[in-house]
Amino acid sequence: MASSEGNKLWGGRFVGNTDPIMEKFNASIAYDQRMWEADIKGSKAYVKALQKAGLVTQNEMEQILTGLDKVFDEWSKGEFKIKPGDEDIHTANERRLKEFIGDPAGKLHTGRSRNDQVATDTRLWLRDAINTLKELALQLISTMVERAAVEIEILCPGYTHMQRAQPIRWSHWILSFFHSPELKFDSISINSMDATGQRDFVAEFLFWASMCITHLSKMAEDLILYSTKEFSFITLTDAYSTGSSLMPQKKNADSLELIRSKAGRVFGRCAGFLMTLKGLPSTYNKDLQEDKEAMFDTYDTVHAVLQVTTGVISTLKVNQPAMEGALSPDMLATDLAYHLVRKGMPFREAHSCAGKAVYIAESKNIHLSQITVEDLQTVSPLFDKDVSSVWDYNRSVEQYSAPGGTARSSITAQIEHFRTWLQAQKQKP
Amino acid sequence: MASSEGNKLWGGRFVGNTDPIMEKFNASIAYDQRMWEADIKGSKAYVKALQKAGLVTQNEMEQILTGLDKVFDEWSKGEFKIKPGDEDIHTANERRLKEFIGDPAGKLHTGRSRNDQVATDTRLWLRDAINTLKELALQLISTMVERAAVEIEILCPGYTHMQRAQPIRWSHWILSFFHSPELKFDSISINSMDATGQRDFVAEFLFWASMCITHLSKMAEDLILYSTKEFSFITLTDAYSTGSSLMPQKKNADSLELIRSKAGRVFGRCAGFLMTLKGLPSTYNKDLQEDKEAMFDTYDTVHAVLQVTTGVISTLKVNQPAMEGALSPDMLATDLAYHLVRKGMPFREAHSCAGKAVYIAESKNIHLSQITVEDLQTVSPLFDKDVSSVWDYNRSVEQYSAPGGTARSSITAQIEHFRTWLQAQKQKP
Amino acid sequence: MASSEGNKLWGGRFVGNTDPIMEKFNASIAYDQRMWEADIKGSKAYVKALQKAGLVTQNEMEQILTGLDKVFDEWSKGEFKIKPGDEDIHTANERRLKEFIGDPAGKLHTGRSRNDQVATDTRLWLRDAINTLKELALQLISTMVERAAVEIEILCPGYTHMQRAQPIRWSHWILSFFHSPELKFDSISINSMDATGQRDFVAEFLFWASMCITHLSKMAEDLILYSTKEFSFITLTDAYSTGSSLMPQKKNADSLELIRSKAGRVFGRCAGFLMTLKGLPSTYNKDLQEDKEAMFDTYDTVHAVLQVTTGVISTLKVNQPAMEGALSPDMLATDLAYHLVRKGMPFREAHSCAGKAVYIAESKNIHLSQITVEDLQTVSPLFDKDVSSVWDYNRSVEQYSAPGGTARSSITAQIEHFRTWLQAQKQKP
Amino acid sequence: MASSEGNKLWGGRFVGNTDPIMEKFNASIAYDQRMWEADIKGSKAYVKALQKAGLVTQNEMEQILTGLDKVFDEWSKGEFKIKPGDEDIHTANERRLKEFIGDPAGKLHTGRSRNDQVATDTRLWLRDAINTLKELALQLISTMVERAAVEIEILCPGYTHMQRAQPIRWSHWILSFFHSPELKFDSISINSMDATGQRDFVAEFLFWASMCITHLSKMAEDLILYSTKEFSFITLTDAYSTGSSLMPQKKNADSLELIRSKAGRVFGRCAGFLMTLKGLPSTYNKDLQEDKEAMFDTYDTVHAVLQVTTGVISTLKVNQPAMEGALSPDMLATDLAYHLVRKGMPFREAHSCAGKAVYIAESKNIHLSQITVEDLQTVSPLFDKDVSSVWDYNRSVEQYSAPGGTARSSITAQIEHFRTWLQAQKQKP
Repeated sequence: MASSEGNKLWGGRFVGNTDPIMEKFNASIAYDQRMWEADIKGSKAYVKALQKAGLVTQNEMEQILTGLDKVFDEWSKGEFKIKPGDEDIHTANERRLKEFIGDPAGKLHTGRSRNDQVATDTRLWLRDAINTLKELALQLISTMVERAAVEIEILCPGYTHMQRAQPIRWSHWILSFFHSPELKFDSISINSMDATGQRDFVAEFLFWASMCITHLSKMAEDLILYSTKEFSFITLTDAYSTGSSLMPQKKNADSLELIRSKAGRVFGRCAGFLMTLKGLPSTYNKDLQEDKEAMFDTYDTVHAVLQVTTGVISTLKVNQPAMEGALSPDMLATDLAYHLVRKGMPFREAHSCAGKAVYIAESKNIHLSQITVEDLQTVSPLFDKDVSSVWDYNRSVEQYSAPGGTARSSITAQIEHFRTWLQAQKQKP
Repeated sequence: MASSEGNKLWGGRFVGNTDPIMEKFNASIAYDQRMWEADIKGSKAYVKALQKAGLVTQNEMEQILTGLDKVFDEWSKGEFKIKPGDEDIHTANERRLKEFIGDPAGKLHTGRSRNDQVATDTRLWLRDAINTLKELALQLISTMVERAAVEIEILCPGYTHMQRAQPIRWSHWILSFFHSPELKFDSISINSMDATGQRDFVAEFLFWASMCITHLSKMAEDLILYSTKEFSFITLTDAYSTGSSLMPQKKNADSLELIRSKAGRVFGRCAGFLMTLKGLPSTYNKDLQEDKEAMFDTYDTVHAVLQVTTGVISTLKVNQPAMEGALSPDMLATDLAYHLVRKGMPFREAHSCAGKAVYIAESKNIHLSQITVEDLQTVSPLFDKDVSSVWDYNRSVEQYSAPGGTARSSITAQIEHFRTWLQAQKQKP
Repeated sequence: MASSEGNKLWGGRFVGNTDPIMEKFNASIAYDQRMWEADIKGSKAYVKALQKAGLVTQNEMEQILTGLDKVFDEWSKGEFKIKPGDEDIHTANERRLKEFIGDPAGKLHTGRSRNDQVATDTRLWLRDAINTLKELALQLISTMVERAAVEIEILCPGYTHMQRAQPIRWSHWILSFFHSPELKFDSISINSMDATGQRDFVAEFLFWASMCITHLSKMAEDLILYSTKEFSFITLTDAYSTGSSLMPQKKNADSLELIRSKAGRVFGRCAGFLMTLKGLPSTYNKDLQEDKEAMFDTYDTVHAVLQVTTGVISTLKVNQPAMEGALSPDMLATDLAYHLVRKGMPFREAHSCAGKAVYIAESKNIHLSQITVEDLQTVSPLFDKDVSSVWDYNRSVEQYSAPGGTARSSITAQIEHFRTWLQAQKQKP
Repeated sequence: MASSEGNKLWGGRFVGNTDPIMEKFNASIAYDQRMWEADIKGSKAYVKALQKAGLVTQNEMEQILTGLDKVFDEWSKGEFKIKPGDEDIHTANERRLKEFIGDPAGKLHTGRSRNDQVATDTRLWLRDAINTLKELALQLISTMVERAAVEIEILCPGYTHMQRAQPIRWSHWILSFFHSPELKFDSISINSMDATGQRDFVAEFLFWASMCITHLSKMAEDLILYSTKEFSFITLTDAYSTGSSLMPQKKNADSLELIRSKAGRVFGRCAGFLMTLKGLPSTYNKDLQEDKEAMFDTYDTVHAVLQVTTGVISTLKVNQPAMEGALSPDMLATDLAYHLVRKGMPFREAHSCAGKAVYIAESKNIHLSQITVEDLQTVSPLFDKDVSSVWDYNRSVEQYSAPGGTARSSITAQIEHFRTWLQAQKQKP
C-alpha cells in the first residue's frame, strides 16, 4: 500500500505504478491551469452551499474560504508552484489548500465529482472569455461604423461573383458585414450554459467562433483583393504588412492572410471535438478532456483575430480615385432597365432590352452611356432623350433608399442604428 | 442573337452555347424543386408588395396571383412538367407562370435578384422543415418521458467511463438525455432567419442537426451496449433488428448502428458547407448553391433518425432481472464513504477509507458488503454495526433527491416538468 | 412462422414485422444498384472459386454462371425490376438468379457473408471508377500541357500573396499545377485495395478526391481573379459563364465558382465518413454502410469537375496585352539585387540596396527603371550604366533556366516531360 | 529610414512600426524553433550548392559551414537565445550566423526565398519525424504479434455488430488490426515529399495520422468494452487506469479513452488545414503557415498514442475463463448450417434450417446443442446423430484454415509473416 500513487486523489486502492508517458498523456495541468481563477471561485461558491446544507460547519467554511484566498493570492502573484502529482488544476488547488489549512480541505469535495467541478470551472471560465471577446468585437464594430460614417461620400463598385455589379457607397460595403450586428453572442449566452452535464456549450462556442472567423475570412478576402495592384482600392499600413525576403518591392497583406487562414484552424477544432463526441457512451468519459485545449486555442485565436482586424480596418488607407475610377457605365445597365420599367415595360422585357444595349456597346467598343438614342430605339421605342439621366453614379446609389440600401439616408440610418446598439451593449452588465 | 440561350433569364447578350455538362453542373432544378411551394408562397407575397409600391397594378397582381395558384395546383397534383431550360425552381415557376398569363409574368421579377429569391425560398422552406422536425422530436421526447414514468421502479447500474458507478433508476438514464429538453430549437428559430443576406441560417441548421444527432449517437451507443449478450439489459423488437446472411443465430441492432452512423454524415455536410464558405468574397457567389443539397440531405436524415429512434425506444423490451442483477455492493462504496462523512470524517479521508475497504474485499475475493465490521474497523474505528444499512440499493438511489437526482421524487418531478413543457410546446403556433 | 420476413435472407427466425420507415432507413438498394455490374462480376469469380474448392459441382457452377449472365443482360438493357424486399443490390441479384435457376442459386452464398460481398463489390466498382477519373484527369493535363506549348511566348506577372512578384511565362502558371503530374493516382491504387476487411480504401479515395479538388479550387480561384474586370487577363467563353437575372451587363464565372465550391462538398464527405468510423467496434457494423453514398457522390462530383475544368481551360481566351501590361519595372527589383550580387555584394545587402532603390522610386513617383544612375549610386557605388540591362522582362524570365524555371528552355523541357508521361499513362493497362 | 524594422530581413523600404499584437500573430518562432536542426542541415546543403554554382567562394562556404556548426552547437546545448526580431527559426539562425561570421552570412540567402526554405525545412523535419513514428509503430506491432504468439490457445467470441458471432482465437482479434501491417507508411514516404512547392505532404501526413489513430480508436473501443464488468475479458494494469475522485471502487480505462479521443483531435487538424487550403490563390500565401502547428501537434499526439497503446497492450491481463465462458452453442449455428451443406443442401436453405433450429432452442429455452436429433429432424431430415460433432469450439475454429483464418495454422502463418516483415523493416535504412 505504500505506493507511489498514495498522493493521488483516487489512490486508495491502487498498487501499481503509472507509466510516465501515460501520466503526461493523462495530465491536463499544462493547459487547464488557465482556469485557476474559475476553479477557486467555483470552490468558494461550493463550500458556501455545503455549509448551508450542514455538510461543513461555519468554522470549516471560513477556514476553507481563507485558504482559497491564499491560493488565489499565489496564482495572482505568479508564485504558485505546480508539483509532481498535480495532474489538473483542481488537484493542484486542493493540494495547496490542504497545505494551508490541513484536514478541513478534505471536506471541500463532499458530493462533488471532479467531473462536476471541471464542468463548472469550464463554464465559469468560458463566460468570462466570451465577455472579453464581446468587448473586442464591439471595438471592431465601432471602428467599422465610425469609418463608414466618415467616408460616406466615397463610391466604389459593388461586386457579385467578383464581377462589378452596381455602384455602391464604400460605407455600404463596410456595413454589409453587420447583417447580424450582435455577432450572435446571444446564441452562446448564459442560458445555454446553465445546463449541467454535457459539453454542448463548448461545442457551441467552437461553432460560434468558426462562423465568426468564417465571416472575417470573407472580409479579409475582399480586402486582399482590394489591396492588389490590379484593384488598388486600399493600402494597408506597414504595421499590418510584411515584405519579402527575396523580392525587395513586395508588400504583402500578411495580416489579412492570417485572418483568413484562422477560419480553418478554428473550424478544425470544432470538427475535431464533434468527432470526439460522436458515439461516446453517455455520462463522463475521459474523451471529454479534449474540450479544454480546443476551447483555449479557439479563444486565443479569436482574441488575436479581432484585435488585428480592428487594427487593419482602422489604419488602412482608401484610394478614392481608384475606387471611383473603377465605376463604368455598364454598371448602370440595371438602371437602364428600370428606366424602361418606369415607362411601363415588364421587368423581364426591360432586362432583355438593357442586355441588348450592353451587347451593342460591346460590339461598337463604346461605353454603354455613349450609345445614341437612335441605336437605343432599335432595341425599344420607349427610349428617349431622357435616358441621359441614367448615367449618373450618385443618382444611381441614391435610388436605393430602402432599409439596408446604399443611399446616403439608408447608410446614415444604419450608422445611427449601430451607434445606439453599441451604446446599449456597453451598458449591459 | 437567335441563340439557344434565348430562353434563359439572363440570355439577352449571350451568343455562345452552353456545354451540356456545364449545364447540368450549373442546374439546381433536380433538387431545388423541393422548394416549389415556398417559391410560390414567396412570389405571392412579393407581388403584393410590388402592388403596394405601385410597381404592378391591381389587375396585374390579380393575374399573377391567379397564375401562381395554377402553378401551385400542378405541383400539388404531380402534374408539373419540368422542361429543358428550367435550371432552377424559380425559373421553372416563372416560365410556367408566363405560359399561363403571358406578359404580366415578366413584372414579378422587378427589383428582385434571383439570389434574393433563393434566400427567401430557402428560409421559408427551412422554417416549415424545422417545424416538422420539432414535431417529430416532441414525439420522441414524449415517448421517452412516458416510458420513464411507467418503468420508474426498475434499477440499473449507472456508468461512467463504461464502468459501473452507482445504482440509478432506469428512468434516470432515459431522462438524462434531456438536460436541454427543448433540443435547442430556439437557437435556429425565426429570429436568426430574419436576417437577410448570407446563409448563416443554413450553416446553423446543419450544426444544430449535427449536435442533435451526435446526442442521439450517444444514446444509440448506450443501447447497443445494453443489447449485447454481455449486458442483456434490453432486447430490440425484430422490427428494428436484422439478422445475418451468414450466421443464423445473429440478431443485430442495425437501427441503432444507423442512428449512430448518421452523426458523421450530417456533420460532414456541415463541415463541407463551412469549408465552401471559407474565404469567399462577400455577397453572392455561385459557391453558395452548395447549401441546398446539404440542407435537404440533413433534413431527410434527421427526419428518419427521429422516427426510427422513437420506434426503437417505444418497442424495446427491458430485461429487469438482468439490470438489477448487474448491481453489486462495490457500487455502494461511495455510500460507504458518506456513511463515514456523516460520522464526521472529511470526505477525502472517507473516500480513502472506502477505497481501502474495496481493496480488502478484492483481496479476500468477497463482496464489499461481506467484510466484517472488525475488518472495517482496521480501516477506520468509526465503522460500527450500523454499516449494514448501507447495503441497500433502493435506499441508495433514494438518497439523491435533489433536482436531477435519481430518487423517485426527483424523477417524478422531472416527468411532470417535461409533461407540462410538452403540452406547452404543442400549443405553440 | 408465416412471417412477412420469410423472403429475407436472414428471415429464418424472425417473426415480427419491420417498420416501413426502418425498412427504408436500412435499405441501400436506392443507391447501391450502381454496383450491379461489380456485384455480378464478383459473384462469377466467387462461384468459380467454390467449384475449385469442391463446394459446388461443375454443373451447378455452369447454371449459376448462365443465370448471372441473364441477370447481367437485364441490367444492361434497363429491364431489371427491383422488387419489394430487394434491400440491396446483392439481395436483388441473388433473388433474380434464384428466379432464373432455382435452388442452385442458394449455393452461391456458401462461406461468404454479405459484408464480404459488399466489400468486394465496392472495391471492384471503385477500381473502374478510378480508371475513369484517371482518363478524365489525363485529358485535363493534356489540354493544359498543349495550351502551355502554344502560348509559351506570353508573359504575365507571377504572384505571391496575390501581389505581383516577378515576371513569368503564362505557360509557367499553367504548368505550376503539376508539381505532382500523376495527381497521386498511385496512392489510391490496386495495392491499397487488396486489403480485405475495412473501408480504408474508401476513406483514402475520399481524401484523394478532396486533395484533387482542393488543388483545382486554387486554380479556379486564380482564374476567377484573372477574369475580373480589374485583372482582365482572361475571358471565359459564354459556354462556361452565366449572366445575372437582375444586371444585364454581368457575366459571371459560375463554372469556376462551382469548381471552387466542390472542394468543400467532397471534403465534407471525407470528414463525415471518418467521423462515422471513429470509435466503431472492429469488424462489421452497419455504420459502414455510409461509405457508399459518400463514394458515389464524390465520384460524380470529381467526374463533373474534371470535365468542366477541361472545358474551361480549353476555351478561355487569354488577353495578352492585359497580361503584359501588368508587368512593371518594380517586379525586376530582385533582378536589380542580383545585378549587385554579380558584382560581388552579398545577397542580403543587395536585397537591402534594391529595397532602397524601390523606396526612392516611390518617393519620386517614378518607375524603378527611371531612377538615374546617380541616384542609384547613393544607394551603392557598385551601380553603373550597365544597370539598364536589368529592365527587360524577357531577359528576366530567361534567367530562370533551372528545372522548373520560367525560361523557355525549362518550360519546353517540362512540356516534353509531360507529353512523354501522358503517352506512357495512356499505354498502361 | 532609421526604423525599428531595420533589423528585419525585408526591412529595406519599411518606415512604419508593427503592431505588437500583429507581430505576435505573424511570428512563428514560438513553434517553428522545433525545426532548428532541419534548418541548419538545409542551409548546409544549400551553401554547398551555391558554391558549386559559383555563387559563393570555397572560402565563404567554409566560413558559413563553420558558423552553422556553431549555431548547431548552441541549440544542442540549449544555449541558443532567441532575440526580439527573430520572427521565425530561419531568421533566428541567419541572425546568429551573421553574429558569428559577419558579411558572408548574407550570401546564404542568394536565390532562395524564405518560402523555399520553410518548405525544405518542413520536409526534412517531417522525414525524421515519420521515421520516429515508424519505429514506435513497429514496436507496437511487434508487441501485438508476440502477444498473439503466446496466447494462441485462448478462444473468445468474435463479434460483428457487437453481437457474438463465431468463436475465434484471441490471437485472431489481435492480428485483425494488421490487414495493412505496414500502417501505410509508404503512402507518406520520401517520394511524395520530393515535390517542391505546395504543402500536400503535410496534408497527407495529417490524413495518414487520422487514419492511423482512427484504427487505434477502434481497437481502443473494443478494449474498453472488453474491460467492462459485463465482458470482463481483460484487466488493464493500474499503470494505465485511473480511479474516481468520488467513487472509491472505480477503475477506469482512461488510457484507452484518451487514445479513442485523439482520433477526433488529429482529424480536426487535418480538416482545419484542408479548409485553410481551400480556394487559396496558388503559390505562397501566409495562410500556409498554419501547417506547422497542425503538424507538430499531430506528431506529438501520434507519438504519445503509439507509446501508450504499446504499454496498454503489453501489460493488460487476459481473463481466459471469462473469454471462454462467453462462448455459447448458438455461436455454432453457422457450423450447423455447413454441416447440412456438407450433406448436399444449398447454403441458403441450410442457413434457413439452422435459423429454425435456433428458434426451437430459444422457444424451449435450451442451448442449441441440447436440441434432440428428433427435433432437428423436423427441420431437416438430413440431421442425424453425427450432428454432435458440431458442438466443439476448438473444432470450429480449426475449420478456418485459409489465409487470414482463425485456425492455429493460419494464425501461426500470420505471426511468421509479420515477424519476417518486422525484421525487414528494422533493417531498412
